Amino acid sequence: MTKAEITREKLLETACEAFWHRGYANVPLRDISKAAGVDVALIARYFGSKRGLFEAALETAFDWPEMLDADAGSPMDVAITKFSAPETDADETSATRMILMNAADPEVGEIVRAAFQEKLLDPLLVRMGGDQSAPNLAMFIAVFLGASVVRQSLRLPGMADQSAQDYARQLRHLVDAALSFKV
Amino acid sequence: MTKAEITREKLLETACEAFWHRGYANVPLRDISKAAGVDVALIARYFGSKRGLFEAALETAFDWPEMLDADAGSPMDVAITKFSAPETDADETSATRMILMNAADPEVGEIVRAAFQEKLLDPLLVRMGGDQSAPNLAMFIAVFLGASVVRQSLRLPGMADQSAQDYARQLRHLVDAALSFKV
Repeated sequence: MTKAEITREKLLETACEAFWHRGYANVPLRDISKAAGVDVALIARYFGSKRGLFEAALETAFDWPEMLDADAGSPMDVAITKFSAPETDADETSATRMILMNAADPEVGEIVRAAFQEKLLDPLLVRMGGDQSAPNLAMFIAVFLGASVVRQSLRLPGMADQSAQDYARQLRHLVDAALSFKV
Repeated sequence: MTKAEITREKLLETACEAFWHRGYANVPLRDISKAAGVDVALIARYFGSKRGLFEAALETAFDWPEMLDADAGSPMDVAITKFSAPETDADETSATRMILMNAADPEVGEIVRAAFQEKLLDPLLVRMGGDQSAPNLAMFIAVFLGASVVRQSLRLPGMADQSAQDYARQLRHLVDAALSFKV
């Protein structure tokens, strides 16, 4: 990698960390350049603007090819394994916080929702049999987001103190309910 | 009310709005005093510090006497009615965002989790039959938090575009699953 490419990567990584954890509106650009150890003018050079930097960061979110890979098993099984395995707590927290902190943002919320729909929901809907499954898929997403908040942020007894295996059983139970709901 | 009481109330109301929506760490005190139209020094006088102001705001959260009132029916029924009625979308968003934005904060997360536990979870656990119900209660909370994010922030088709009545059916289905989980 050239020095410019290394700087760009570093900025992108720092931006993801800041935007996902604090939310787009709460992050001044100078916080990102400072944390990345580069001049703030380089953000404009490489990404055009704060929004451009966010859009580049967004490209790296929801990048879960294994959830859409037919050979890897049902997307629901893949998600349960991914979200309950202890080594992927960072992934789980990261994706969940990305959504929680940015999906309702007045400036970038719309592109976050569009990216989530296009990269994850639409392919999942096709595999689940089309639009009539939208209520089930929405309930499935609700289960994962809610469980993640309860385990990682609220840390409630009864979910946060369970082993990965027991947490996976809780997720499975709620996912089965989400998918069995009849409109 | 005296003028001092009015100012204190105004500061408290403004603080809730700011802390719940942006998160404790992201709100400078001068934003609150400016929005309330008072001198920032009055925050120190009335609340001691930023943390003191947050603690006073926290006293007003999770104040849902109807969920713990035995005569009002099962707490689960009360919650479903409360969260799906269109006129209480503001309440729902407010309580959910309070948790999402503050429960993992390094400085105040611990007192947020303790208040949630003491004011809402402990009384609910007693009504549900004690600690062995902790996994069911945690799953119940996960369902409400996740559904709220999907409907209010992510605005997913299949949940955000449902009538209040259909959304209540989705909540009921997931809540029944949460409560029927066997450890």
